[in-house]
Amino acid sequence: MMIGFDAPDARLPAYARLRDTFTARIATGEWTPDHPIPSESRLAQEFDVSVGTVRKAVDGLVEEGLLERRQGSGTRVRAPSFSASLFRFFPIRETDGSPVSIPSSQIILRSVTQAPAPAASVLDTEDVIKIVRLRSLSDQPVLFEEIYIPTERFAGFDKLPESSLGPLLYPLYFEHFGVMVKRASDEVSFGKASERVAQRLRIRAGDPLAVIERTAFDIENRPIEWRVASGSATNFRYRSEIN
Amino acid sequence: MMIGFDAPDARLPAYARLRDTFTARIATGEWTPDHPIPSESRLAQEFDVSVGTVRKAVDGLVEEGLLERRQGSGTRVRAPSFSASLFRFFPIRETDGSPVSIPSSQIILRSVTQAPAPAASVLDTEDVIKIVRLRSLSDQPVLFEEIYIPTERFAGFDKLPESSLGPLLYPLYFEHFGVMVKRASDEVSFGKASERVAQRLRIRAGDPLAVIERTAFDIENRPIEWRVASGSATNFRYRSEIN
Repeated sequence: MMIGFDAPDARLPAYARLRDTFTARIATGEWTPDHPIPSESRLAQEFDVSVGTVRKAVDGLVEEGLLERRQGSGTRVRAPSFSASLFRFFPIRETDGSPVSIPSSQIILRSVTQAPAPAASVLDTEDVIKIVRLRSLSDQPVLFEEIYIPTERFAGFDKLPESSLGPLLYPLYFEHFGVMVKRASDEVSFGKASERVAQRLRIRAGDPLAVIERTAFDIENRPIEWRVASGSATNFRYRSEIN
Repeated sequence: MMIGFDAPDARLPAYARLRDTFTARIATGEWTPDHPIPSESRLAQEFDVSVGTVRKAVDGLVEEGLLERRQGSGTRVRAPSFSASLFRFFPIRETDGSPVSIPSSQIILRSVTQAPAPAASVLDTEDVIKIVRLRSLSDQPVLFEEIYIPTERFAGFDKLPESSLGPLLYPLYFEHFGVMVKRASDEVSFGKASERVAQRLRIRAGDPLAVIERTAFDIENRPIEWRVASGSATNFRYRSEIN
């Protein structure tokens, strides 16, 4: 496993350490909602513990809502696939339906700053790190993002080496700060591009803009990130499953 | 219970009949995701069957994904609360956050017709019933909807008496046609109002328009409805939970 998160505390009982290990596998995307996790007997073998211990660890994660048991199709990750949600914003499939490349991600700014009013209100603090990011598809900018995370939970994020910043932030939050994003709430609206945003997106000021405001929550349901993502409204598509 | 759906088939085993009865409670909204369903022992008492029979019926619905067991907080409906999704489209809370009235619903047209291409493609048939509906808040039209359902599954929908049409379609689908909407898929995009839509929404042709295309699926994952809902983009808000 390539995670920098602390190894489970050896003083914890075996099932609790196993639970932390499993949580890490979910957070880092090693286990996904797409495939059942290994059977309890295989996990018992892998970690050299009893099946009862594995079951207790899995039970805990089912109770927390991170895993779910489905008769006939095994136990699966129930956590949302946030990487999939990347693909909901713009037509990033070819018109023939074939998948295209993952949007590239360029971090323009990271700075410790004072939160603007909506971020401060959601995060309940003015001490934040601001991240400005541009996402592009085949060199065409499609999404301009301003992201705010509380300094208290993410101290040092602004100093992480560039090389450690992949295209996805949520795995990073977990690996470096032990913060796992459990759910998020999006609000889509339409507006007009400001001069500044228009320049980044290579559209004209006043052009119709699609805006997604997202609040992300950790496992304890605390808001840990607020972001505003903007893109040209012209080709905008936002997909949402209700189930 | 005020449902017109057929009573469970008496030739079925007790647990299967119970399962149908429970499904009806979910479909009609008697059981909601907001509260745990009664305990298995209370249900056994209510239906005069053994706890084992209740458990078997509940197990079946858990497996189908209609119910979910949560340790410590009982068994709950897992089906989406579609009525709540009504409230995601427009600012139908007062600015102070207090809830306002449910949007009123006016059915303008019901007719057996030939499906337009996107509806035919999703529903896999050209034989549809078209429903045109206008939703208003305090007499202001906010959402213009064109809804297509396959005639094969909904024969006679166009002839249902006006008085039986409440503000929500999904409970109606179940009560009269035994079709339960299990999940839906929304796609939000942005466009310009046509003359016809503008007139209904009391905006001007060419004004910015928010468009939601929705496909709804039944319990067997068959598409059973396709709709396009349009509203002025100006005050549009679409909320979505990712979890």
